[in-house]
Amino acid sequence: MTIELRADERLDMLYRDEIQIIQSHSVFSFSLDAVLLAHFANPRNGGRGTTVDLGTGNGAIPLFMAHKVTGQIIGVEIQPRLADMAQRSVQLNELSDKIKIINKDMRDVFVDIKPGSVENVVSNPPYFEATEKSHKNPNQHYAIARHEIKADLNLVTHTAKKLLKSGGHFFMVHRPDRLFEILDALRDNNLIPKRIQFVYPKVGKEANIVLIESIKNGKLTGAQILPPIITHQDNDEYRDEVLAIYEGRA
Amino acid sequence: MTIELRADERLDMLYRDEIQIIQSHSVFSFSLDAVLLAHFANPRNGGRGTTVDLGTGNGAIPLFMAHKVTGQIIGVEIQPRLADMAQRSVQLNELSDKIKIINKDMRDVFVDIKPGSVENVVSNPPYFEATEKSHKNPNQHYAIARHEIKADLNLVTHTAKKLLKSGGHFFMVHRPDRLFEILDALRDNNLIPKRIQFVYPKVGKEANIVLIESIKNGKLTGAQILPPIITHQDNDEYRDEVLAIYEGRA
Repeated sequence: MTIELRADERLDMLYRDEIQIIQSHSVFSFSLDAVLLAHFANPRNGGRGTTVDLGTGNGAIPLFMAHKVTGQIIGVEIQPRLADMAQRSVQLNELSDKIKIINKDMRDVFVDIKPGSVENVVSNPPYFEATEKSHKNPNQHYAIARHEIKADLNLVTHTAKKLLKSGGHFFMVHRPDRLFEILDALRDNNLIPKRIQFVYPKVGKEANIVLIESIKNGKLTGAQILPPIITHQDNDEYRDEVLAIYEGRA
Repeated sequence: MTIELRADERLDMLYRDEIQIIQSHSVFSFSLDAVLLAHFANPRNGGRGTTVDLGTGNGAIPLFMAHKVTGQIIGVEIQPRLADMAQRSVQLNELSDKIKIINKDMRDVFVDIKPGSVENVVSNPPYFEATEKSHKNPNQHYAIARHEIKADLNLVTHTAKKLLKSGGHFFMVHRPDRLFEILDALRDNNLIPKRIQFVYPKVGKEANIVLIESIKNGKLTGAQILPPIITHQDNDEYRDEVLAIYEGRA
């Protein structure tokens, strides 16, 4: 299949070159966070039914999760340029049967997806509050992806709750410094946190990423804190456990 | 100094033999949890003022923290036999000026300690709910130390809140499967969680210990998730980071 790349775009490979993804430093590149979330998320019922990615960006998470589901993945992205990149990557990987990209504000997604119909929701939402004082990226594409300009924690969790069936799973990656807010937002939306995994940049450093799995209308029982992931060596190269994830060995 | 040991008691050493502690397998031995908590707890204001240990057992935490404070540590223990072991260990280490052991139910401690007067509270409380179904140790000494028979999470956090000055710190060790309950109990008592450290038994295993520092009437701002501690090697021996804590090198 031939897909047209724009001047500022490049192709990156993942999972031993099995997945190709269109990236552009001028508008958006997926991050380690997306790779870790796609690895963390184990769709229920063997990935049957619908999985929705809220704020899919260039489609990284649906592309990385395609091999994990037997049903469909719908990526929702508000930015036309990013949704277009995602769409072309889906075609490039010949995954159009499995992955659908919707270019829409997540507030309007219920026209396309029936509330209470979804098995799994995943999201790598903007991490930073969009306060007057916060240093937003002057590039609007990055600013929207990183700051809570179009979607905040409450919108994402509320949308996840509304999409999910009772018993459906919500997988999110976020920043651990917002952990208490995240747990409150989840529980306010009857998304009961269950499995948490902390990711640390180096040995001896504080966590900088948190992965959380919640269950809609689940019982508040024991938390499971999964083994720590430490991403980098002292020389700033990825540690093998991260390379294994990138290469599909983990 | 000569201290009488009962038939079932032995002396254990810590911090390169600088601290001696009376233990007895038939009633109580301190655990790794107490050692980790004493290491985790950094008393505010250089350890001036009063630090209280709620449920001190054989006095392990006050003994291990003695070098960290310039003020006084009060250990509160409901079981007479354990309080007596703690008292003799304090004498043995010639720390009677610094450590006071009170043999009392923590509900009654306000006769001895004025509410709102304490800089730091530490606690390694019973971890397990005292439900009908829970498998309690037939040995009452262990059962009371491990199950919420005499004191539960709510009593411990409420007592900590009542003892502490505004701005005072509460350091607790507990089980991560009760994390959500713990966070709720803390916040219900205006103890605002701040620093959390997860402890994992081995590489690749889920966390089995959590250390939490909260501040009375603190602001709910960013959580800090400290570097992971992994306690054991695959061959079940302690890893060096734990030996370093036991030997006072960390």
